[in-house]
Amino acid sequence: MPKENPAAAPAGGRASRRRERTRAKLLAAARTVMARKGTGATTIQEITEQADVGFGSFYNHFESKEAIVEAMIGEVEETFARALDQIADVVDDPAEVVAASVRNMMERVIAEPDWGRFMANSRLSAPHLQTGFGARFARDVRLGIEAGRFSVEDLEATLVAVGGAVFALAAACLDDVIDFEAPERTAILVLNLLGIPSPEAVEVAHRPLPELESS
Amino acid sequence: MPKENPAAAPAGGRASRRRERTRAKLLAAARTVMARKGTGATTIQEITEQADVGFGSFYNHFESKEAIVEAMIGEVEETFARALDQIADVVDDPAEVVAASVRNMMERVIAEPDWGRFMANSRLSAPHLQTGFGARFARDVRLGIEAGRFSVEDLEATLVAVGGAVFALAAACLDDVIDFEAPERTAILVLNLLGIPSPEAVEVAHRPLPELESS
Repeated sequence: MPKENPAAAPAGGRASRRRERTRAKLLAAARTVMARKGTGATTIQEITEQADVGFGSFYNHFESKEAIVEAMIGEVEETFARALDQIADVVDDPAEVVAASVRNMMERVIAEPDWGRFMANSRLSAPHLQTGFGARFARDVRLGIEAGRFSVEDLEATLVAVGGAVFALAAACLDDVIDFEAPERTAILVLNLLGIPSPEAVEVAHRPLPELESS
Repeated sequence: MPKENPAAAPAGGRASRRRERTRAKLLAAARTVMARKGTGATTIQEITEQADVGFGSFYNHFESKEAIVEAMIGEVEETFARALDQIADVVDDPAEVVAASVRNMMERVIAEPDWGRFMANSRLSAPHLQTGFGARFARDVRLGIEAGRFSVEDLEATLVAVGGAVFALAAACLDDVIDFEAPERTAILVLNLLGIPSPEAVEVAHRPLPELESS
C-alpha cells in the first residue's frame, strides 16, 4: 500500500505534492505583499523573496504577475461561492441569505486581514462580478426580488453599488474606521439598498448565522 | 503698466508662469498615466515622458510620487468642494443638494474619463473623506438628517457605503457596464441609502440641475 509509505510513492506523486506546496507558498506570499503595496506596485521578485523560493520557480507556476492575480481572485471566488451556496441551502428567507453571505465575507476579512486587504485593494472588477461569487450573489438577490422580499428598481446599478459599498466597508473595517459590529452594520446597509428598511434590516442582520462546513 | 506688456514683466513673473505650466503638465500627465496603470504601478519616469519634460524637473515640483498623488487628490477635492458649496448655496431641499452633488460628480467623470479613472482607481481613502470633499458631503447629509429629510441609523458606516457605491458606479460607468443615465441612477441609490425610498428618490434625482459657475 504505497499510501502508507510516502517514500515508496511514485516520484510523480511526491513531485506533484512539492509543486502544490510551492504554488500555495507563492499565492500566500503574493497575498501578503499585495495587501501591503497593492497589486500594481508588487514585483515578482518581492513575491518570490516573501515566499522564500527562487525567482525562476515563479514561472513554473504562473506565466506573469497578472496570472497569479487571476489565480488569487479565483481562490477568493471559489471560497465565497461555496459559502454562498451552503448558506442558500440551509436558509429560507432571501433577506437572511444575503445578510448571512455579507456577514460571512466580512468575518473572513476580519479574521484574515492580508486576504481582506488584497481583496479591498484589488476590488474584484465588474467582469469578475459577473461570474463565480458575483453571479451567485446576483442569483440570491434575484430570488429575493421574485419572492417579493426585495424591492429593487435598478438591479444592474444596485449590484454594482452593493459591491462598492461592501468593499469600502471592508477597507474601513481593516483601517479601524468601522470598529464595532462591522459585519452586521454592512449587512444592514446592503439590505437597505435592496429595499428593506432599517428596523427590519437590523433584526435580519442579527439572526444567528447558519453553521457552515469549514473549507 | 507692466501688466499690459508681458515682455516687460519681471523675470520672476515669467519664470513663475513657466513653473506653473510645467507643474500643470506634470499633474495632467500623472492623471493620464495613472488612469491607465493605477497609481501603484506608475513610475516618475513615465510621468515625465508623458509630460514631455526632463526627468529631473519632476523634483522641482514634487518630492515624490506620493507627493504628486496628494496634489492630484487635493485638486479633485478642491473642485468638488467648490461645486458642493455652490449647490448647497442655491438649493434648499437637502435631498436635492445631495442628488445634485452626486450627479455633478458623475457628469464630470463622464466628461473627463482620465480624471474619472484616476479617481476610481485611487479611491480617496477614508482620511481624505474626512476633510475637504468628504467633510462637505458629510455636512450636507447631517443637515438633511437634522431637517428630518434623511433617515440614517448609522451615519459613519452609511458615509463609507455611499463613497464606495459612488466610486464603484463611476468605474462601472467608465467601463460601459452602466451606460444610460448613470448620474441619475447613482443619485437615486445614494438617496435610497439615506433612507429616501425609490419613487421619491427618482423624482428628486431628475430635477433640473442648478447652474454652477464653471471653475
